[in-house]
Amino acid sequence: MFKVGIVGGTGYTGVELLRLLAGHPQVEVKCVTSRKEAGMRVDQMFQSLRGRFDLAFSTPEDSGLEACDVVFFATPNGVAMHDARRLLNAGVRVVDLSADFRLRDVASWQKWYGMEHADPELIEQAVYGLPEINRDEVSKARLIANPGCYPTAVQLGFLPLIEAGVIDAANLIADCKSGVSGSGRKAEIGALLPEAADSFKAYGVAGHRHLPEIRQGLSRVAGAPVGLTFVPHLTPMIRGIHATLYAHLNRDIDLQSLYEQRYATEHFVDVMPAGTTPETRSVRGANLCRIAVYRPQGGDTVVVLSAIDNLVKGAAGQAIQNMNLMLGLAENTGLDVVPLQP
Amino acid sequence: MFKVGIVGGTGYTGVELLRLLAGHPQVEVKCVTSRKEAGMRVDQMFQSLRGRFDLAFSTPEDSGLEACDVVFFATPNGVAMHDARRLLNAGVRVVDLSADFRLRDVASWQKWYGMEHADPELIEQAVYGLPEINRDEVSKARLIANPGCYPTAVQLGFLPLIEAGVIDAANLIADCKSGVSGSGRKAEIGALLPEAADSFKAYGVAGHRHLPEIRQGLSRVAGAPVGLTFVPHLTPMIRGIHATLYAHLNRDIDLQSLYEQRYATEHFVDVMPAGTTPETRSVRGANLCRIAVYRPQGGDTVVVLSAIDNLVKGAAGQAIQNMNLMLGLAENTGLDVVPLQP
Amino acid sequence: MFKVGIVGGTGYTGVELLRLLAGHPQVEVKCVTSRKEAGMRVDQMFQSLRGRFDLAFSTPEDSGLEACDVVFFATPNGVAMHDARRLLNAGVRVVDLSADFRLRDVASWQKWYGMEHADPELIEQAVYGLPEINRDEVSKARLIANPGCYPTAVQLGFLPLIEAGVIDAANLIADCKSGVSGSGRKAEIGALLPEAADSFKAYGVAGHRHLPEIRQGLSRVAGAPVGLTFVPHLTPMIRGIHATLYAHLNRDIDLQSLYEQRYATEHFVDVMPAGTTPETRSVRGANLCRIAVYRPQGGDTVVVLSAIDNLVKGAAGQAIQNMNLMLGLAENTGLDVVPLQP
Amino acid sequence: MFKVGIVGGTGYTGVELLRLLAGHPQVEVKCVTSRKEAGMRVDQMFQSLRGRFDLAFSTPEDSGLEACDVVFFATPNGVAMHDARRLLNAGVRVVDLSADFRLRDVASWQKWYGMEHADPELIEQAVYGLPEINRDEVSKARLIANPGCYPTAVQLGFLPLIEAGVIDAANLIADCKSGVSGSGRKAEIGALLPEAADSFKAYGVAGHRHLPEIRQGLSRVAGAPVGLTFVPHLTPMIRGIHATLYAHLNRDIDLQSLYEQRYATEHFVDVMPAGTTPETRSVRGANLCRIAVYRPQGGDTVVVLSAIDNLVKGAAGQAIQNMNLMLGLAENTGLDVVPLQP
Repeated sequence: MFKVGIVGGTGYTGVELLRLLAGHPQVEVKCVTSRKEAGMRVDQMFQSLRGRFDLAFSTPEDSGLEACDVVFFATPNGVAMHDARRLLNAGVRVVDLSADFRLRDVASWQKWYGMEHADPELIEQAVYGLPEINRDEVSKARLIANPGCYPTAVQLGFLPLIEAGVIDAANLIADCKSGVSGSGRKAEIGALLPEAADSFKAYGVAGHRHLPEIRQGLSRVAGAPVGLTFVPHLTPMIRGIHATLYAHLNRDIDLQSLYEQRYATEHFVDVMPAGTTPETRSVRGANLCRIAVYRPQGGDTVVVLSAIDNLVKGAAGQAIQNMNLMLGLAENTGLDVVPLQP
Repeated sequence: MFKVGIVGGTGYTGVELLRLLAGHPQVEVKCVTSRKEAGMRVDQMFQSLRGRFDLAFSTPEDSGLEACDVVFFATPNGVAMHDARRLLNAGVRVVDLSADFRLRDVASWQKWYGMEHADPELIEQAVYGLPEINRDEVSKARLIANPGCYPTAVQLGFLPLIEAGVIDAANLIADCKSGVSGSGRKAEIGALLPEAADSFKAYGVAGHRHLPEIRQGLSRVAGAPVGLTFVPHLTPMIRGIHATLYAHLNRDIDLQSLYEQRYATEHFVDVMPAGTTPETRSVRGANLCRIAVYRPQGGDTVVVLSAIDNLVKGAAGQAIQNMNLMLGLAENTGLDVVPLQP
Repeated sequence: MFKVGIVGGTGYTGVELLRLLAGHPQVEVKCVTSRKEAGMRVDQMFQSLRGRFDLAFSTPEDSGLEACDVVFFATPNGVAMHDARRLLNAGVRVVDLSADFRLRDVASWQKWYGMEHADPELIEQAVYGLPEINRDEVSKARLIANPGCYPTAVQLGFLPLIEAGVIDAANLIADCKSGVSGSGRKAEIGALLPEAADSFKAYGVAGHRHLPEIRQGLSRVAGAPVGLTFVPHLTPMIRGIHATLYAHLNRDIDLQSLYEQRYATEHFVDVMPAGTTPETRSVRGANLCRIAVYRPQGGDTVVVLSAIDNLVKGAAGQAIQNMNLMLGLAENTGLDVVPLQP
Repeated sequence: MFKVGIVGGTGYTGVELLRLLAGHPQVEVKCVTSRKEAGMRVDQMFQSLRGRFDLAFSTPEDSGLEACDVVFFATPNGVAMHDARRLLNAGVRVVDLSADFRLRDVASWQKWYGMEHADPELIEQAVYGLPEINRDEVSKARLIANPGCYPTAVQLGFLPLIEAGVIDAANLIADCKSGVSGSGRKAEIGALLPEAADSFKAYGVAGHRHLPEIRQGLSRVAGAPVGLTFVPHLTPMIRGIHATLYAHLNRDIDLQSLYEQRYATEHFVDVMPAGTTPETRSVRGANLCRIAVYRPQGGDTVVVLSAIDNLVKGAAGQAIQNMNLMLGLAENTGLDVVPLQP
């Protein structure tokens, strides 16, 4: 059994890691840290975990993180960058679910995240953990920058088109819709049920932190800078991201085949039959991205629909997928949870 | 007091007409028809109307529709086209909330709606009832084709850009999200709460009936055919439409001023302050379209956010707005309901 | 026009007062206070109010509250008790939507609310503002203790039974369900959409502040202390309270007639036809309590169903109803908003 | 591997059986029947099952049900009673998730279900499948009457009190709240999202089919007829039942200990710590009943809170629990899914 630690276990990605790891046959969760809640039993905060873990939150200092094989950071941005190096030096593999190591360009990171980076040199060692793009790198990594939720849905959706070079990559549009858990388990008025239920709105239209992350990822694939308009929206549901992607085709191609072939061997990407549309609930709780591709009225605009659970393939599930690769386990170990529908 | 009749009063646009007309000081609802429910009190079907109307549903034949000043058709598509002429001949003004008279091109109508049109000659007499575009025509009309919900949100959003000629009208994108009441008060599995709640999906990507309606309206304004990709989505809320519109700017312009000036005198269109985003709940129950306009990262893509209540500005409210104009009443008579937030 | 001030206008009862007062023909809102948001326009915080009020939040000191005819306190508990006397001395009528003056027993109040009462002598002057019980007192009042949301639904539901003396008042049960807005517009994790949506739970089973308020009200009517078990629950909706009440009948009686007669002249209480059940959405946005009464299987247990909108008949609407009575206006002035269904 | 068949696989209990059986290590689903959808792939109807089953719906005649070890009936009431005998004669064990074999009293069954029973003699052979009450009988059964959702939550909640004889069993109250999936995957207007969302109501107050089932179960335990008032409510969520139970204590007892001891060895019943309340989401997707017990203000009314997922412990999960017992497998085989929270 591999030993696992979780830093910052009181948020949604923390509890989701615990839910999935409870069913993982090859790892044992040794500690879950929270400075604020140290001493409280984990299942006191999360009723759903009663009977699954005999653990209390502990302070990072008292948690024995250095003795773990893998440590997940499920912390707010700006925490992992302070602590990752120490753990890496102790031989621990680190998967950071926050944004600290996602952007290669430090200046850009500092602009978008509004703080100085505490360990810019470590960024170079970090591997961006989207296995469908860079599985080999992930397998050899010691430090994983786990992708953001929007970036996962958008990159997997655009990937076949960009790799095939069939679209105008200078004018991409990503119209994305997220459930409210995407904003975290934080006491904020905008995320209250009476504020967010039965309503729909855009936000961050002028600029959102996931924009540079998506641009970086797609540009690397394209081999040249891409142009992207990214508009995130808040939709009244607990979980789920739906990305609707638009691009101009620059030549004729069988889109359905392109997608099916690209993802034929990917366990966690499901290309839907032609003419169907993925529902976010069809991936609820599961480490899956379901994708459909359309060319409405046979015109030159391609429309891609990409659905994930923001807390699973968009966060905790993908983190475990990365961990499995790093540990040499089958990539889907512990990750074959069937989606909860209805 | 003007006398009003409603044909087909058991659906969502029917009950919404009744809600709004209950507070209208210058009209009296004389009859509400339903073949299926004839004899049932209206407030037995709709608890919310208890104490507001002393009316039962009646058959169209027994309803005295010909004696009304205005008759609303809140019927499924394919009903009004059979009955409108008789009422018009009797001197009744008709507002059709269905799609029967929306498309000028009969062949196109027949293709999208899958039936033969019963009265194609009447289409020419019908006025498309979007007062912000053609108020004068509406005022003189005898027969109004009340716009669809998506077409209202999309046309009001694109209008200033197209009128000003500042965008490439051959490549418009309308990414639209609707609450579930948009699919009507019909017993269908896809609209059940356990199917539609806590989930998000696209539908009709290959083609939706509102596409030709929007294209027709925008093309008329543009003076040339526009190219439009229209992707509707279902979002888990009762009411509300949010349209996110994308276009390429072909020259520099102060977008905020453009919108504020275009809609300065419009009572039912609210241009939001720069940097804000409209929430659908902010128009819940009200005859309003709130619009915000963005130019992300100062690029050449303009993003317009347009929010309406699909049952009000997207249906019953707009129908009453049209009625007010036809009857020479102040356009906002009975329509100044404050939105219900939260 | 009467001049009205609102102290503490940033919460749900504040915005609801503003929504309803926007349509009230005989009052003008002169000021809305908020220490924290002083200077911000009211319609910047509440999009739904755009175009309705040309007002910014002001500090209580700068608001000219003393020049108002009526001041509403839409503040957290413990504020009004400090400021009410000064306003009363200035000749202002005060309606307190918080709990400061609801309990006659100061010791009990201090126990349940966990603070010392700042002006216990004023409690005696306060009139409990449930007009269906004590309309005359309300009409003559200078200071109204506006009832809590649960207490309104429960008292109106039990009232006919207790007045008629047909139940065992020592063993009442009130199983109550509230929408999430009942917990206020406060940043709390438990009220986040991802926490409260798609779930149901009881809370405050061991004791809730509305218990002594309900007991006080029912005991006054009964002429003797009543025994009450009160279990509140949180249900995933924005607005609405549904109280399901249980009592043992001690003699045979026509329950339907009892309720219909008791509330025959009440404008804001609707006794539903026998065999029907009130839905909370049928009072959404409206100052109404809909009640149905049952005697399942003809046994000796009576079941009463009582539904209100917690923000209207359970708060702001009832406050305006009280204001209307105090000012000698028709009781329903400005309060005949039709419920929003669907 | 045991061979399993499902009759009637297009409803919510059908898809839930498939979700749970997909992860069951000792059974293989051989067929899923649906007359109406015969020929359609199962994963075409249920996106969530893509990649899990290579099965299409088949007609009952073509399904080879007789060759199965266990057949589940996930059919409407009135189907299993026609087909069960034939399968039993073929040596198949049958678990009926419908109500056909739940009531011992045929006359009562016929009254509540409004049809003649097709095989009344089989009722005697059927074992009511609530293992926490009659595990041994279940283990030996050939035909299981799987309990209803409300009856499961209510019986598990009252059980310790009735077994201990500490309450007045003539005056029990069960105030129950169900998510909308409880009414099945049927096209009905009342279950549409725009009808059922953001609202709360009681239904079936005069009488509900689960009333005689609960009374039968509790009476058997009590050894005498119990008196029960049962009021079901519809709450706007997909899954979940919350029962709030009330009874009069007839003597002093440590309630917390009573419950903890009664359920100490039950894998699927979780007695919550004193002072806490179970949320339905904490059992979402899991075969669990979480229970809390209270004695408010130390009075003689006991309040029990009982939460289950209506589709799991209230239907498909319990059916698999019964199957495990019948097949001699560990009771929790395939049933240790962690609840999905948030």
